[in-house]
Amino acid sequence: MQAFLITFCISAMDLECASQETVKQGLLARGWPPIKGFSKHVKTKVLEFFSLLIKLGQDDPRRVVHSLKAGLALTLVSLFYYYQPLYKSFGVSAMWAVITVVVVFEFSVGATLGKGVNRGLATLLAGGLAVAAHQLANLSGRIGEPIVLGIFVFLQAAVSTFVRFCPQIKARYDYGLLIFILTFSLISISGFRDDEVLELVHKRLLTVLIGGSTCVIISVLVFPVWAGQDLHNLIASNMEKLGIFLEGFGDEYFKMPEDGESKEDRPFLQGYKSVLHSKTNEDALANFARWEPRHGRFQFRHPWKQYLKIGALTRKCAYRIESLNGHLYADIQAKREIRSKIQETCTTMSMESGKALKELSMAIKTMVKPFAADIHIENSKSSVKNLDTLLKSGLWDDETDLLEVVPVATVASLLIDVVTCTAEIAESVNELATMLKFEVVEPTVSPEKPETGQPKIGIS
Amino acid sequence: MQAFLITFCISAMDLECASQETVKQGLLARGWPPIKGFSKHVKTKVLEFFSLLIKLGQDDPRRVVHSLKAGLALTLVSLFYYYQPLYKSFGVSAMWAVITVVVVFEFSVGATLGKGVNRGLATLLAGGLAVAAHQLANLSGRIGEPIVLGIFVFLQAAVSTFVRFCPQIKARYDYGLLIFILTFSLISISGFRDDEVLELVHKRLLTVLIGGSTCVIISVLVFPVWAGQDLHNLIASNMEKLGIFLEGFGDEYFKMPEDGESKEDRPFLQGYKSVLHSKTNEDALANFARWEPRHGRFQFRHPWKQYLKIGALTRKCAYRIESLNGHLYADIQAKREIRSKIQETCTTMSMESGKALKELSMAIKTMVKPFAADIHIENSKSSVKNLDTLLKSGLWDDETDLLEVVPVATVASLLIDVVTCTAEIAESVNELATMLKFEVVEPTVSPEKPETGQPKIGIS
Repeated sequence: MQAFLITFCISAMDLECASQETVKQGLLARGWPPIKGFSKHVKTKVLEFFSLLIKLGQDDPRRVVHSLKAGLALTLVSLFYYYQPLYKSFGVSAMWAVITVVVVFEFSVGATLGKGVNRGLATLLAGGLAVAAHQLANLSGRIGEPIVLGIFVFLQAAVSTFVRFCPQIKARYDYGLLIFILTFSLISISGFRDDEVLELVHKRLLTVLIGGSTCVIISVLVFPVWAGQDLHNLIASNMEKLGIFLEGFGDEYFKMPEDGESKEDRPFLQGYKSVLHSKTNEDALANFARWEPRHGRFQFRHPWKQYLKIGALTRKCAYRIESLNGHLYADIQAKREIRSKIQETCTTMSMESGKALKELSMAIKTMVKPFAADIHIENSKSSVKNLDTLLKSGLWDDETDLLEVVPVATVASLLIDVVTCTAEIAESVNELATMLKFEVVEPTVSPEKPETGQPKIGIS
Repeated sequence: MQAFLITFCISAMDLECASQETVKQGLLARGWPPIKGFSKHVKTKVLEFFSLLIKLGQDDPRRVVHSLKAGLALTLVSLFYYYQPLYKSFGVSAMWAVITVVVVFEFSVGATLGKGVNRGLATLLAGGLAVAAHQLANLSGRIGEPIVLGIFVFLQAAVSTFVRFCPQIKARYDYGLLIFILTFSLISISGFRDDEVLELVHKRLLTVLIGGSTCVIISVLVFPVWAGQDLHNLIASNMEKLGIFLEGFGDEYFKMPEDGESKEDRPFLQGYKSVLHSKTNEDALANFARWEPRHGRFQFRHPWKQYLKIGALTRKCAYRIESLNGHLYADIQAKREIRSKIQETCTTMSMESGKALKELSMAIKTMVKPFAADIHIENSKSSVKNLDTLLKSGLWDDETDLLEVVPVATVASLLIDVVTCTAEIAESVNELATMLKFEVVEPTVSPEKPETGQPKIGIS
């Protein structure tokens, strides 16, 4: 059976690849390859697919655990069918417990809870309304009943579908509205054939409750994955990625090509790119996190909005870094003497902002008040002032070609923007630290405030 | 009934607002407001909610049509219950047609087709495998059967859940895998109680087919919404938004504050912001569009990948514009004489890039080969050259404070980046034009190539 499933997946992937290859040719134009070549092709695809799966598991072992948890939950609710006394009380309605488990069980506790609560409440509300609709329709006689029911179904489906377009409701209650439409339609229509509508609603509600609570219990008790923790880590790691770029940027930009190997082999300088598109992920995680109860260091009403604010500021900084990155390999032609004049201040600005971001990221990760970040930001700001002084003092001689100054001046200016962004990020991290009463840890060595270069601190 | 639904939605929105207000206080700390104040509060919320709904409908009337279509589809399949001859052949299995309509009917044809095909194929495959599993389990006797079935259910759920993490499969077949797990579990488990498994599979498949085709037929025939068309329009309008910014930027940046009203009242300069986050939307639309058959000017294997490429380049340009926007209100202190020297060339660069982007956007919208865009790009490139010459000629006198030159030089440099990005966008739009054989329309007036300023052309 697993073999069948794998074959299905491979053919799915295959189709995907084929669609890339045959954009222009059309699918029908492809001939059926000879059996031998085909079996070799399948073999390669199977191996590729397995190595992809192994990589997915290695990247995040929680995925393997989640899959086993899903299997466990489903096997547990299927006991309703196997075990006679349980089957007696629910009969085929037990099916709803199975369906609930399949659709409600999600990767994180928050997503599972959100879907479970949505499903439970929507079933309750829609069940109640459907019973009322059934009673009303009953009054209109055997011929009028289907017409009245039809009108009810049409109206509730149209109104609920329209309400699902409302962004605030879509974000949190979309699934609930879907289940509302489903349950209302099913119960009010079934009621036409089955007069024990209340019994139907009761069984449906109970089985959904059983399925939903199985999901929630397994999700919370067996190696729970908290969306809140994931959001917390994502925000911190995004900041760290920018920090890594900025720490490396100065040296990389001012290094002359003759210094050694090609400049383009720097994967650590490309890590920031994922930050540019992380908004959707952050929003989704924050939505899930709002459903989660107190866990570890996170309360029920944790200030997730502040995390989103920090995330938005981090992205703003990432946009500047994207512009900076464009200059990394483009300005090689600018003369060494032009660049060397501002090399030290620019490298310090970049390095200190990077250190500040990494420090802030560490502060969020460990939930300890950022101690050295302010010093790094001060250092970067004083470098900005140094740069101002340098520029005021007529840095380049009169014969300097202004054309060659422009790209270097742009990099300096973008770095000034980055310093401003970093200060804004630090401010919002400090707000978060105050909200959550981050621990204060005394540094082991008293920090000094050097003019430039690294400050000596214990906890960085 | 509608009143109930509205109350539910309002309380949902209310809870949302409450959660914003009571982040620190916790929900329990809120007192129950006096009845009078409460009813006034509800009244305000009802009015707010209704005006929001009206706005949603006005913004995109297709939403209203979609809601009515959803109501229609649901009412149609509910005929299976009301009409005796139909009910005879399906019985309670007709429920599956209703469920299919509720979950498969989506806003665009592509999304509906994708879900429908996924659901149909997954039901077929899972049904077949479940029958096989049932036969195998039957061999192991009355006691062994539930154990073997349990193992099968556990294994397929775990494996399928894990496979859903694979990004390529998640993008197109996620829903299919969900339905695979659902159907396999339901049929193999039900088989334990009901020996007519084949009959069960047959009915399930038929009802899913009926529900799915009802959705697809209504979706395609009644005011269809094509995801492909939406993607096409989105890509074109994103480009236009950048064009609008660039056309306005030069005048706005070089205008001195004493020239009139505050600089901050420029909503047309903020339109580009939505481009920064449109990746998720573009990817989703492209995924849906791949399911769509030939419609209007779009073929079945339309080059959607090229649209995504253009979208990515447009976003790259938007990141530069975000950096430019930061300078719009920050450099007011730079002296008039410093800025005025490069005002003309910078304004031309910005204006011509903006015109080129608007022209390219129009070319995509109308599917006519971009005619004047190349001229605008040439104009902007020659402005870059003019700027180079200006800078080489020692533009500012020796007493000019270099510090004041830096921000202006940055704006110029970012504009040069924008010109490069625009040229890249033009190239990929031209690729698209070749792929799709865009119509060639002769301009009514032969274009001239002016040194600077607007070229005179007929179709711009």
